[in-house]
Amino acid sequence: MELTILGCYAATPRTFTNPTSQVLEIKNRLFLIDCGEATQVQLRKNKIKFSKINHIFISHLHGDHVYGLIGLVSTFMLLNRTNDLHIYGPKGIKEMITLQLRLSNSWTSYGLYFHELESNESEIVFEDEKVIVKTIPLKHRIYTNGYLFREKIGEKKLNAEAMKHYQIQTCYFQNIKNGKDITLDDGTFIGNDKLTFEPIPPKSYAFCSDTVYNENMIDLIKDVDTLYHESTFLESEATLAGKTMHSTAKEAASIALKANVKQLILGHYSTRYENISLFKEEAETIFPNVLLADDGKTFEI
Amino acid sequence: MELTILGCYAATPRTFTNPTSQVLEIKNRLFLIDCGEATQVQLRKNKIKFSKINHIFISHLHGDHVYGLIGLVSTFMLLNRTNDLHIYGPKGIKEMITLQLRLSNSWTSYGLYFHELESNESEIVFEDEKVIVKTIPLKHRIYTNGYLFREKIGEKKLNAEAMKHYQIQTCYFQNIKNGKDITLDDGTFIGNDKLTFEPIPPKSYAFCSDTVYNENMIDLIKDVDTLYHESTFLESEATLAGKTMHSTAKEAASIALKANVKQLILGHYSTRYENISLFKEEAETIFPNVLLADDGKTFEI
Repeated sequence: MELTILGCYAATPRTFTNPTSQVLEIKNRLFLIDCGEATQVQLRKNKIKFSKINHIFISHLHGDHVYGLIGLVSTFMLLNRTNDLHIYGPKGIKEMITLQLRLSNSWTSYGLYFHELESNESEIVFEDEKVIVKTIPLKHRIYTNGYLFREKIGEKKLNAEAMKHYQIQTCYFQNIKNGKDITLDDGTFIGNDKLTFEPIPPKSYAFCSDTVYNENMIDLIKDVDTLYHESTFLESEATLAGKTMHSTAKEAASIALKANVKQLILGHYSTRYENISLFKEEAETIFPNVLLADDGKTFEI
Repeated sequence: MELTILGCYAATPRTFTNPTSQVLEIKNRLFLIDCGEATQVQLRKNKIKFSKINHIFISHLHGDHVYGLIGLVSTFMLLNRTNDLHIYGPKGIKEMITLQLRLSNSWTSYGLYFHELESNESEIVFEDEKVIVKTIPLKHRIYTNGYLFREKIGEKKLNAEAMKHYQIQTCYFQNIKNGKDITLDDGTFIGNDKLTFEPIPPKSYAFCSDTVYNENMIDLIKDVDTLYHESTFLESEATLAGKTMHSTAKEAASIALKANVKQLILGHYSTRYENISLFKEEAETIFPNVLLADDGKTFEI
């Protein structure tokens, strides 16, 4: 998994900071998460291949998370996209996009599918043979979901030397990768553990923005490799955080600790703070492994 | 009048080029014309005082002219704007903006007034004591208007020396500025031409984008000081220009010539051209006074 931060600042796009958007690459799939204004410019600046994005996950319908979506949908059209595009987001997102297309008297050259969400329980929104994506219900001023991305456990890897040694024919390879044992023509039994290596452990990434401090998410994100949790404010603005239903760096760290995640990435900083390293300092008083998101930064998960 | 080009490229925002938006300053009023995606970032980069924009004129509802409007309306709200904001544009623009505000469960802290247009005849859309703004019906793939901004003729300037010489009391000054003659107590008649100087000639600016070559606009823009006319293509792509209802540089120059304007500014270039100076070269074969718009450029009118 590789995560690229296109934007991670709250509220409004500015000269040097961008609103929320991220690209998560998992096994050659590109997932776009949130799409603030001018996300398409950030995609260009970060040299991300537009055409490989087939799934876009929107957390909520505040402008700094969604106002770039209509521009991206339109640009895909101008680029003569033909692949289907799937958009996952709160109920209303379809009307938001289709009204604007209708008013500009245009329609997409590609299949545009909306998957509107309204449940307050976690649900699977995407699944294929390698990846599964679930919602993480969050608590914010409007209906909001985070998203949990999990790789599936892959096939076992063939032990090439064992294949050669026992002269196993290729037609048995898939069964062996699926975990089957083998009995040779002379009756010798060979256990699967001698024929294969364990698959690479699957990785997981949880995106949680925007939300007030909310322990309900802990069970859902338990033990994930990487948690992105919003930290709009520092503890000095805790009252404001509560009032606007955002979190502080300390609260984000507390969730990370209780969920036993491997690493925490902070983001969605209010632009009132000139020095984002304060967020890391504050979070590290609670949880050791803290990273700071910043526009254009890439994280290996 | 001072015109600042925030963006003047067609179709999509890119790393180094921005979609259409301009700020026109007339006698201390700031008019925003069109509002492509990330116009608010361009306003910041060009250090334009957001709060002074009270009137926004949108030509048509294609994304590269309007997708930045909702972001700007929202940011005005975050900046605690209180002044009324007036938006002029095609019917549908109100629904486009209000739907998005409703979906984000927000409303503006200031008065937001929509002036929806649907006439195919030129009409006055704004007028105060110093400026008048009229629509210029254009021909494009969807309903589109250009806008004509005209200063009103100002008051005559008092001739300070004459005031002193004839010992004219200040209570008569306004009448004199309005063109009245004076008869002194001794019966001497003094014509207004001896008491005043002519006002500064009023300036005019016509914004015409997007449009196919259309001679119907010529009467409306006759003799203006500055015409901005789109030139999406060069003559080599004339067929494409016709098909997409855009103009070539040569066609823009032909309109400028026939309307006897003082200067022509070209813009709305397709990003297929790497060298925009070709637009100037082509237009100058028809009309002598051609300037090239570019993002961040300012023109005195």
